[in-house]
This record gives sequence, structure tokens and C-alpha cells, in this order.
Amino acid sequence: MREAHIPLATLPARVSIREVGPRDGLQNEDVILSTAQKIALINCLSDSGLEHIEVGSFVHPQAVPQMADTAEVFARIERHPNIVYSAIAPNRKGAERAVAAGADAIQVFLSTSESHNQSNVHMSIADSLSQAAEIAALVRHAGKLFDAVLSVVFGCPFEGDVPIERVLQIAERLVAMGAQQITLGDTTGMAHPRLVQEVCLAFAERFPQVPVRFHPHSARGAGLANVLAALQVGVDRFDASVGGIGGCPFAPGAPGNVCTEDLAHMLHEMGIASGIVLPRVLACARNLERLLGHAVPGQTVKAGICGHLGSQGEPRIAELARG
Amino acid sequence: MREAHIPLATLPARVSIREVGPRDGLQNEDVILSTAQKIALINCLSDSGLEHIEVGSFVHPQAVPQMADTAEVFARIERHPNIVYSAIAPNRKGAERAVAAGADAIQVFLSTSESHNQSNVHMSIADSLSQAAEIAALVRHAGKLFDAVLSVVFGCPFEGDVPIERVLQIAERLVAMGAQQITLGDTTGMAHPRLVQEVCLAFAERFPQVPVRFHPHSARGAGLANVLAALQVGVDRFDASVGGIGGCPFAPGAPGNVCTEDLAHMLHEMGIASGIVLPRVLACARNLERLLGHAVPGQTVKAGICGHLGSQGEPRIAELARG
Repeated sequence: MREAHIPLATLPARVSIREVGPRDGLQNEDVILSTAQKIALINCLSDSGLEHIEVGSFVHPQAVPQMADTAEVFARIERHPNIVYSAIAPNRKGAERAVAAGADAIQVFLSTSESHNQSNVHMSIADSLSQAAEIAALVRHAGKLFDAVLSVVFGCPFEGDVPIERVLQIAERLVAMGAQQITLGDTTGMAHPRLVQEVCLAFAERFPQVPVRFHPHSARGAGLANVLAALQVGVDRFDASVGGIGGCPFAPGAPGNVCTEDLAHMLHEMGIASGIVLPRVLACARNLERLLGHAVPGQTVKAGICGHLGSQGEPRIAELARG
Repeated sequence: MREAHIPLATLPARVSIREVGPRDGLQNEDVILSTAQKIALINCLSDSGLEHIEVGSFVHPQAVPQMADTAEVFARIERHPNIVYSAIAPNRKGAERAVAAGADAIQVFLSTSESHNQSNVHMSIADSLSQAAEIAALVRHAGKLFDAVLSVVFGCPFEGDVPIERVLQIAERLVAMGAQQITLGDTTGMAHPRLVQEVCLAFAERFPQVPVRFHPHSARGAGLANVLAALQVGVDRFDASVGGIGGCPFAPGAPGNVCTEDLAHMLHEMGIASGIVLPRVLACARNLERLLGHAVPGQTVKAGICGHLGSQGEPRIAELARG
């Protein structure tokens, strides 16, 4: 196995965080927010310095009732010109709806294990890839960004280890379809730092021109350690969820997505910029606690921003200079 | 600032975890366990493969009522010959009681900021050092191990940044008193990976012969990321608390200590041995939830052990071989 020889000094100076709370977070909550509440949440997030917000998904409303109003949410949010507002689409029909709703980017998703793909979307990986090709053509024809999210890359709850070569082969198909970036998902929080580096290095070697995004889950507490490991091999795009909402269907009660404000806090402390204004995203997390009626798993919302940081919770200039 | 150039391949193959739940954890809980409950908890932990358990502290019972029965706990636990059972002592009288109770190791603690030391033990750092010298003489005369724990090394909630040189100067005094190891405490969870590496590297350069232990808190979610950073600069001793109990008086509701089973889970996944038998420490965490009447912050207790690991949640031989 190859190992990272990259010292902290060469960490990325800036990272891009995609906020997935409104989709990956809310779809795992028992409480279904009203359309107006979702819009208020997304507007709050838009004012927090984020550059990319996953607004919702266009799946069948019976499968994921939490996402039934995604088109209406798209229609009514206040859109900032510099923010990418994206949606997940599982099939051609969903992609058509996403394009019609005005999504800037459409993400297909498929699993890197057959059993997880069957469990999640009830078809084989080959069938998912065929569908992805259709979606890619449609999305590119509409002039939108086509993205792909791979699930259970770092371990499958049904099959265990996932061969890296299989991940690369699936990625290769998606890259050939014109995927702008590939997201490597740790869907059930089975990644660990060595594996993250191994997979990300293998990906960068095979696809040096394709941006990779890491979608960490923290079901066993290692979410930010895995982010650090990814940073050390040059990954500079991450998914995170406001308040850390998300959970995992295979781990009741366990946190799911890495928390946006905890991630940004650690990055900023390290002198790595994210564009996020921490007090604002913390305000979104506090509002979310009120809407959901329970505390969110995020920790900075309880502990507060460190005195190390500037008044907006951003890296100080001295920190940035050495970043 | 210097940076770590140590690749993951050279991470320690084995680490030592000191379980601080019975002391640092329980003293921050509202529920005070009965003596019998504490004894049952420590006996359960003794059967979990841990090598070092912080049993309690010998402070004034009015200051920390949760620890009033530490002598009785020491007298009645079933001691394993290979486990170090330690106690915290804030002054000469406490150290005498700890020795009389049969503690294998006695830890003094002092802060690396004047304001935190005043807040915590109502004296100056200079006075704390004088007292530490008395305790050191007493402990060594009794043939016990003398350890020192430094608080707020990575940031003080009152003063902010703590100069590394001050940390090293205080450590130097304690080393001269015969401290077997120095614990660097992130008391309120203000550390970040760069700072952890900076401080640990500076310590190793100044005191190449003195073992350093890292006491991480995860008040803002970065606990295990900070552990990874410490591992990368050769630190192989860590403090953690079963279930992640502990909290932080400056961050209500925020997790405090890094969770023992989450830490061991990440290490084992990386092929780093700890001696801990994960299913057993998870059983301790579940018992603790019943005793405290609330869920613990630890995450592996909810998500379960990854299929990657062996049946006891230990690193598989193949993993160890590449460790």
C-alpha cells in the first residue's frame, strides 16, 4: 500500500465545501420540514459563505417523502449568483425534473457494491451506469453540470471491503460520460485514514485531471480524521452537513455526515480557508435545532468558536500566510 | 513552523491508551455513581484489555463530590497485575491519600496559563510547581510512578494562545522532579492538527527521552483528527474516556474526552494495536449509559464495529503486518 508523504505544510490553502444538509441531512430526519422551512434554511445557508448547496433530490415522493417538494424549493429560494445549487437525480425522469426546476448541477449516484446498489436503487451497477449515461447526455445537453457520487467506496455494510480497482472502473465510466467531478462517498462511516489516502491516491493517479470530492460520514467518530488524511493527499473538496444532521440507516442514532461548522472550524484553525462565515452557519444550525425539535450532532454549535479565530470564525491572516 | 514529514507508513504499530472515564469522565457528570457502581465499571474496564485506568482523584470532597469515595474504590476493585491504576492528586495531602490507597501512579496537574490555573486550583503556576515538587518526592519515596498532566496546552479559554516555550519550561521543571511522562492536555478542545504536531515536535526535540501522552478533547469535533496528527509525529500514548463521557465545563453539552472505543476503533482499522478488546469496552459503555440514564457521546456504541475488523474488533493480522 502506498502512503502519503505529503507534510502538513503542503495542505491545500483553500477548500470547497458542498453543503448537503438540505438533502442528505433532511432525508434522514423523522421530522419533515415544510417547504417554507426548507427555503428559510437554504436562504440562511446561502448567506453563510458556502459555494455549493445540495438543495434536494428528484426521487419518487413515495420513496423519500422528505424530498417531495424539491421543485418548489428550487423555485422559491433566493439564489446567489456565485453559489451552485444542485440536485440528486436517480433516473432520466428525475434528471428532467431537476433541469426543469433550474438545478445548476445534477448528481447521479450509484454504489460500488452490487448488494448496496440493489438495496438502494433496486438495480445492478451495470443498469445504474446505463441510466447514468442517459442522464449525462440530458444534463450536458441542457448546459448543466453533470456530477457523480459513488456510495460505499470505503466499505459496504453488506459486503465489507470494496476493491479499489472496482471503484476506479466505475469512475472511469462516469468520467467518460463527462462527469465534472467524482464524489467518493463513505456512506456508512467505514473509512479510516489509511484507506482514505490509499483510495484518493489511487484515484489521483488514474484520473489526474478529474477533481475528486470526499463525502465523509462520522458514524464511528473518525470523520474529521478522515478529512485530514484526505487533505494530506491533496483532496480539497468535501461534503458536509449543517449541524451534522444526516444519520445513517444502518446505524440508528449515530451521526452521519460530517458537520459543516465542525469541519470549517478545524480547517480555519489550521489556516485553511473555506469561505464559510462560521457565526452564520452556526446560526443556521441553531435554527435547525428549533425546526427539528432536537439537538444536532454538531459540536461547535455547543462549544462555540475558538478564540484563536477571527471575529467571523475565519482563519486569521497570519494563519493563512503559512497555510 | 515545522511540519510533520512522517508518512502514515511509519505510524506507531502499537499505542497505549489510558482510560480516564472513571475520573475525568465521571467528575463531569451530574449523576453521582455509587461506590459499587464505580467498582463495577472499573472491573468491567479492567477486563477490556486496557493497560492503564485512572481510578479517581484525591481532591477535597466538597470541590469534587463525585470523587469523594476514591479510596474505597481503590480498596475494592479487582486489580489486574498488568494494569496501572492511577489517581490524580492536587496537593501533598492528596498524594499521601493516593499512596495510602494503593495507587500505582500519582498524577499532578497544573495549567499552562496563569488564569486557568487560578480558576482551577486557586494558585499561581509557581505555587503549583512547588507543590508538585513536594508530591514528586513523596511519590517517588513511596516507590510509585510520578506523572504530570499539563492543562490548556493547546489554548486557554481565558487567555487564548499558550506559548509553546512556556509549556516546555513548565515541562522541564516536572521532568527535573522525575516525571515518568508528561501529558499534554487539550482541556477545552482548542487544539487543531497543525498545532498538535507543532507542540509535540517541539516537546520531542527538547525532551527526546521523556514519553509524551496526548490528552485530546473533542469539544469541536476534531479529537480524532488531532490524534491522527499526533500519531504522525510519533506520539503513541493517548488518554480517552469510555463512551466519550466527560464534557467540558466551558462548553455545556459538548463532548469532552475522546471516546475510548471510537479511538480504538479507528486505530484498529488502521492496523494499529491497542490491546483493547472492542466488544468488551463497548459493553462497558452500554452499562454506563444505563447507570447515567442518558446516551453517551461515543459513536461506535451506536454504529457498531466495522466488518473490516476481527471478531474481537481487533486489527486483523494482515493489517498489523503493514502497520
